[in-house]
Amino acid sequence: MTRTMPSRKSTVFPGGIRALNVGLAEFAEPVRAHGASCVQVEWRPPAQADRELGLLLARLEDDPADEAGGLIAGANAQAVRRILEGRAALLDVQPAGAAIPGMTARTLLHSGPPIEGSRMCGPMRGAVIGAALFEGWAATPEEAEAMAARDEIQFSPCHHHGAVGPMAGIVSPSMPVFVVENASHGNRAYATLNEGLGKVLRFGAYEADVIARLRWFAETLGPALNRTLRAHGPVDLATISAQALQMGDEGHNRNAAATSLFARTIGPALVRSVEREDAAAALDFMRGNDHFYLNLSMAACKATLDAAHGIAGSTVVTAMARNGVEFGIRVSGAADAWFTAPVGVPEGLYFPGYGPQDANADLGDSAITETCGFGGFAMAAAPAIVRFVGGTPADAQDLTREMYRITLARHPGFTIAALGFQGTPTAIDARRVVETGVQPVINTGIAHRLPGIGQIGAGIARAPLACFADGVRDLGRRLGVGGGARWTGAPSSQ
Amino acid sequence: MTRTMPSRKSTVFPGGIRALNVGLAEFAEPVRAHGASCVQVEWRPPAQADRELGLLLARLEDDPADEAGGLIAGANAQAVRRILEGRAALLDVQPAGAAIPGMTARTLLHSGPPIEGSRMCGPMRGAVIGAALFEGWAATPEEAEAMAARDEIQFSPCHHHGAVGPMAGIVSPSMPVFVVENASHGNRAYATLNEGLGKVLRFGAYEADVIARLRWFAETLGPALNRTLRAHGPVDLATISAQALQMGDEGHNRNAAATSLFARTIGPALVRSVEREDAAAALDFMRGNDHFYLNLSMAACKATLDAAHGIAGSTVVTAMARNGVEFGIRVSGAADAWFTAPVGVPEGLYFPGYGPQDANADLGDSAITETCGFGGFAMAAAPAIVRFVGGTPADAQDLTREMYRITLARHPGFTIAALGFQGTPTAIDARRVVETGVQPVINTGIAHRLPGIGQIGAGIARAPLACFADGVRDLGRRLGVGGGARWTGAPSSQ
Repeated sequence: MTRTMPSRKSTVFPGGIRALNVGLAEFAEPVRAHGASCVQVEWRPPAQADRELGLLLARLEDDPADEAGGLIAGANAQAVRRILEGRAALLDVQPAGAAIPGMTARTLLHSGPPIEGSRMCGPMRGAVIGAALFEGWAATPEEAEAMAARDEIQFSPCHHHGAVGPMAGIVSPSMPVFVVENASHGNRAYATLNEGLGKVLRFGAYEADVIARLRWFAETLGPALNRTLRAHGPVDLATISAQALQMGDEGHNRNAAATSLFARTIGPALVRSVEREDAAAALDFMRGNDHFYLNLSMAACKATLDAAHGIAGSTVVTAMARNGVEFGIRVSGAADAWFTAPVGVPEGLYFPGYGPQDANADLGDSAITETCGFGGFAMAAAPAIVRFVGGTPADAQDLTREMYRITLARHPGFTIAALGFQGTPTAIDARRVVETGVQPVINTGIAHRLPGIGQIGAGIARAPLACFADGVRDLGRRLGVGGGARWTGAPSSQ
Repeated sequence: MTRTMPSRKSTVFPGGIRALNVGLAEFAEPVRAHGASCVQVEWRPPAQADRELGLLLARLEDDPADEAGGLIAGANAQAVRRILEGRAALLDVQPAGAAIPGMTARTLLHSGPPIEGSRMCGPMRGAVIGAALFEGWAATPEEAEAMAARDEIQFSPCHHHGAVGPMAGIVSPSMPVFVVENASHGNRAYATLNEGLGKVLRFGAYEADVIARLRWFAETLGPALNRTLRAHGPVDLATISAQALQMGDEGHNRNAAATSLFARTIGPALVRSVEREDAAAALDFMRGNDHFYLNLSMAACKATLDAAHGIAGSTVVTAMARNGVEFGIRVSGAADAWFTAPVGVPEGLYFPGYGPQDANADLGDSAITETCGFGGFAMAAAPAIVRFVGGTPADAQDLTREMYRITLARHPGFTIAALGFQGTPTAIDARRVVETGVQPVINTGIAHRLPGIGQIGAGIARAPLACFADGVRDLGRRLGVGGGARWTGAPSSQ
């Protein structure tokens, strides 16, 4: 049995003293030592005590009476509405060169913010080699590297073409891609077919088995899925993703349920549409690859978020992506700008024989899932994932709860049973990230830092705050309220 | 800030009084009113204060120094070991008449404890009519009812033949059944193929669509699965059930994940083994029936528990089953005895237009899943289920925690993420049910009380305590320690 200790009577304050302490907890102790009750309020200075940023955030607050504040509030409401309305469906499977706008015959798309070939990390270089071998542009890895060095390959970020690619994210013209449409908004997104785990192109491997699998995708699996979709009609990915959240998936590092549901959904049409052995091989491949749905999840998230991009004044984050060197984000109201910072190595579990010294920095467009409220943001739905880093189901719930602090909505269609069917944390507000210092959590695979090796683990990463601070500063400038010039105090040098 | 209030100083007890109150909480209040601290211990008299039963339970406690106690402890340890070792695999699909021992050409198996045709409930009578029409024994429902009245049908409980059937549980010779083997013990169990929800035989419907589906099972789906299993080899059901528990299933009223995993597992072999249209139709059927795995879950549980049946002295419950009139249990150490009591109507949600007044009492062998730690016992794994009765995920966890009080083990292979990956509550001890008064919880469908209508809802039921009390009394007699004659006090009349 516990009771609150009453304050001692005071002659000056006959009713006793009841104190409220904000911030450092130590200040409450002397008050309590004198017998007064004291309520402790947790508080930290916003923006990690960066004065310039803190003042800018104050000017960018939602405030209908203020020009910028009113614009932001309205723009974000529109962005949130578009995200919540998102209704992704798989329409088609086509060769990337035919489906994706802006791809030339010598284009390779890559993950993350823009990067020149010479600065690419090891696994991305490995995937470029593999793609050049697969396309027949080069006969050996050395030839492929020489081509890239001679600028004979046009590199471009997936995100600039409505596409997303996990890990290295390399997309070449002959690779089949999923064509996903956001039925509510009419925009399309694209992603390659998932290869499975281990020695695969997206982790930088390019040995013969890897190329043979890509060839089977292009010659058999892609055309089979194409015919299946023509027979079946669009596959409602939003519904599969919503169901999978009730089945232990978080849509990034765990896709076992969604893969099963997808295979079960298209199975009959697949069997009726293609040769028996091709249908059986396609089902076999999906049976053996619990991550098959990952690329569909990514394309669905991309299609959903792109509909919320380009709204003037909106501080909603519409993409988070890594190229293995830099982490970059895009913000709805900041047009085509990327806000980048160096990217770190995830905390995780390694396959036997590997450790952090072997790991490449975090890599891939797959953080589009977190940007849309899945992955690390939906960790509470998939407690098995936090075991990668020694966590418990309670830790998983804490991560999702933490993400509520930096998001503007809870998605009514994507709910988490373990949190009493609350919706996933949706629509990251760059302002809230900067204000709270809460870094978006990202579930991810870990690639070997050298080309040609592949996956060596999986784990959890955090987005660098600097990207979000730069995004907020840029929006301030666009709205004419940034830059410190309007403030009497000098900007902090921090 | 809260602190425990210190006891006032006493001259008699200079250290103050610290009290412990066991049982009725009201007795602690006067103690606290006088300033003493008091710890409240929850306690109720065992066996609902039935003196005879309470004394019998005391004699049947695990006690190596006591003959009966030592025998029970050893027997239960063996029963628990056999359940935990259970490894169910789907071997084959065959017509019931060929596969199930002891079925004659005019046998119909039914769910629950034994019952004569004249005492059968409405939905079971409906299913008997449907089976007679399906087998061609009768041309009209009236003819079928007349046959049953003339004792031309030999009724026998599924459980007497190693079989289990959901709801009415009617199994006729031409129906295909799953043949499931417990690889650890070599015993086999059988179950029909699941028909889906709504107008289906097991809920008492027998219209033309119902019979046509049964015919398709016998002529197409059964033979297709037979050929698939010959090509594929045994399907490891224990692994599918374990995975599904991580995916929101509890293996009784929710089988969406396990059905998806099962279809994904056998898909390739199915496509390679049978005609294209038959394969597509089989995949279509499994796509549209989230409960397809239920009957496999039931057969897997039956095969697991039968290995633990028949161990002299064991108080472990090896079956719970309902025939719509009576609830019955079997206890490992009680040989072929059934311990029965009248069965109630589940608490649940009804389809539009129906209510409790239309409901039959609880029905079916599907409570074999709860007996094995699934279903209501694994509710924490499937929080969506408690919504049937307005519950929350916290309620779901409470139900599983409550079941730990009446079970002897937590299954290391069947774990629940929401409870920190604790194992499912496994091996119900009839003694603990009687002692605690905690009634096993059962997830269930609700059938209309009249023949020919079908399912009208789904909900949650509780097993009647009287069955467990009778089981404990019987074991006491078998061990020579029951009957009250050895006790000085007269048995309670309660």
